[in-house]
Amino acid sequence: MTNSTEQDHAPVTVIGLGPMGLALAGAFLDHGHTTTVWNRSPRKADDLVAKGAHRAETVTDAVTASSVLVVCVKDYEAMYGILGQAGDALAGRTLINLGSGTPEEAREAVAWAAERGIHYLDGAIMVPPFAVGNPEAVFLYSGSKTVFDAQQATLSSVGGTTFLGDDPILAVLYNTALLGLMYSTLNGYLHAAALVGTAGVEVAKFAEIANGWFLPSVVNAYLGANAAEIDKGEYSGAQGSMEMNLTALEHIVRSSEEQGADAELPRQMKALAERAISAGYGPNSYMAVIELFKKPAGNA
Amino acid sequence: MTNSTEQDHAPVTVIGLGPMGLALAGAFLDHGHTTTVWNRSPRKADDLVAKGAHRAETVTDAVTASSVLVVCVKDYEAMYGILGQAGDALAGRTLINLGSGTPEEAREAVAWAAERGIHYLDGAIMVPPFAVGNPEAVFLYSGSKTVFDAQQATLSSVGGTTFLGDDPILAVLYNTALLGLMYSTLNGYLHAAALVGTAGVEVAKFAEIANGWFLPSVVNAYLGANAAEIDKGEYSGAQGSMEMNLTALEHIVRSSEEQGADAELPRQMKALAERAISAGYGPNSYMAVIELFKKPAGNA
Repeated sequence: MTNSTEQDHAPVTVIGLGPMGLALAGAFLDHGHTTTVWNRSPRKADDLVAKGAHRAETVTDAVTASSVLVVCVKDYEAMYGILGQAGDALAGRTLINLGSGTPEEAREAVAWAAERGIHYLDGAIMVPPFAVGNPEAVFLYSGSKTVFDAQQATLSSVGGTTFLGDDPILAVLYNTALLGLMYSTLNGYLHAAALVGTAGVEVAKFAEIANGWFLPSVVNAYLGANAAEIDKGEYSGAQGSMEMNLTALEHIVRSSEEQGADAELPRQMKALAERAISAGYGPNSYMAVIELFKKPAGNA
Repeated sequence: MTNSTEQDHAPVTVIGLGPMGLALAGAFLDHGHTTTVWNRSPRKADDLVAKGAHRAETVTDAVTASSVLVVCVKDYEAMYGILGQAGDALAGRTLINLGSGTPEEAREAVAWAAERGIHYLDGAIMVPPFAVGNPEAVFLYSGSKTVFDAQQATLSSVGGTTFLGDDPILAVLYNTALLGLMYSTLNGYLHAAALVGTAGVEVAKFAEIANGWFLPSVVNAYLGANAAEIDKGEYSGAQGSMEMNLTALEHIVRSSEEQGADAELPRQMKALAERAISAGYGPNSYMAVIELFKKPAGNA
């Protein structure tokens, strides 16, 4: 691996200028890369052009401007639709797809790229746009280790470079898994904030306990401490059984109803604990719920 | 407030010896309190008796043994059923209820206690049993500040002493809100672990990224940074709109389906984002979901 200035500052083309694409192109510019950008609505590039980016008029111009193409568009279909306009110009170039999708789509993209002679790498951005460019921002990559190694220095301009393995679905799978964790946590947090809000408690006040202590020191610590036990399939209920958790969930449902807040989210959670008990996990810890999640709902 | 040895070591009766009651009684013993215990199944007290606790034969014996009664049973109904057996012996004593319930139940308990001449305080334990006794363990109290002040030194034997205010529903409301946050986060985590598990990734491996970085550094930091904006009702979509979040949620649903994992949790989350968009929050940040949670589901 070389860390030459030439490689660090390799010309890069960024395709797709949503909030994330804008942040990526801005980070490449900040790190001294000759940066070409293309977006369906070209005006999105105005601020980047003012900072020194080249605005490509066509997709083919964008593709031929750099040997490294970074794509961040809505999904794989959108990527195929855009890049298809460049035809044979794609051959021999490196394509790093930072958009999101599904495991099957990630596998198909490897085949699609191979047919066109493209060096392909799948990646996922796990930070909000404002964090792009920070070396600690987590970017996940999977698939060809050869392509990853060749581009790691360039990719380090937009964030960290974590390689998950040569299975090309891993970046997408981690991405969807972590985003699911995020949405579930956000939902729980926003519901909790709404619930205490019924008694006039401000979110900023609730955050002192919820963010300042409960999430990091209780929930996250609890999960971290239990990872190895989950892998072993050990769900000891000594510190609290699923049955006891169901009682707590019933209180959350009823408290939400009494206070006139949404009770649907708690009801869904209560139904999940009931499913776990029906499946025989009543005496186990709450962690046994993962056994339900390993199968499609309805398969006991 | 006094911190005399006498007050710190005041005799205490603990009623209810589930995992949490056992931990409470153990912490009182460890801090030098004369500790009397009662449980419906008396054998649960064996280990505590070996460590010096007194086993009360009847509820009346338990109540008359101490001026401070700490109750940790399944719910308010269970508390009334047990304490009712002590009749007039309750008058003049202090009752600290650390079980969980609903806001209405917390209000009713204040009236119930007043009718019987009981000094009542409602509390909630926000840590698992093994953390009880640690001065940093968060215990929440609300209601009579007079009772709280009189018992703070005794209560400090089992954990921290956070007084939320004189509205007696606050401890229960924070309790149910924080537990809801916990279950939602656990569900998201366990689903994520099951999803990456379909590609052979162990939970302990996933935890390196999920616990070691994503939850504390992305999710929790994001929530903390946005609390004030939520209070203002400002849900700027500049860093990502609800429409963009819906695309991510669709990928989570499809990834879960493709991998043969549970897709019901992601589908519920996707439906929530769709409700938010239907309610007009498509251009806003995901935080606008709190507006849905402020009302019963179905009230747009």
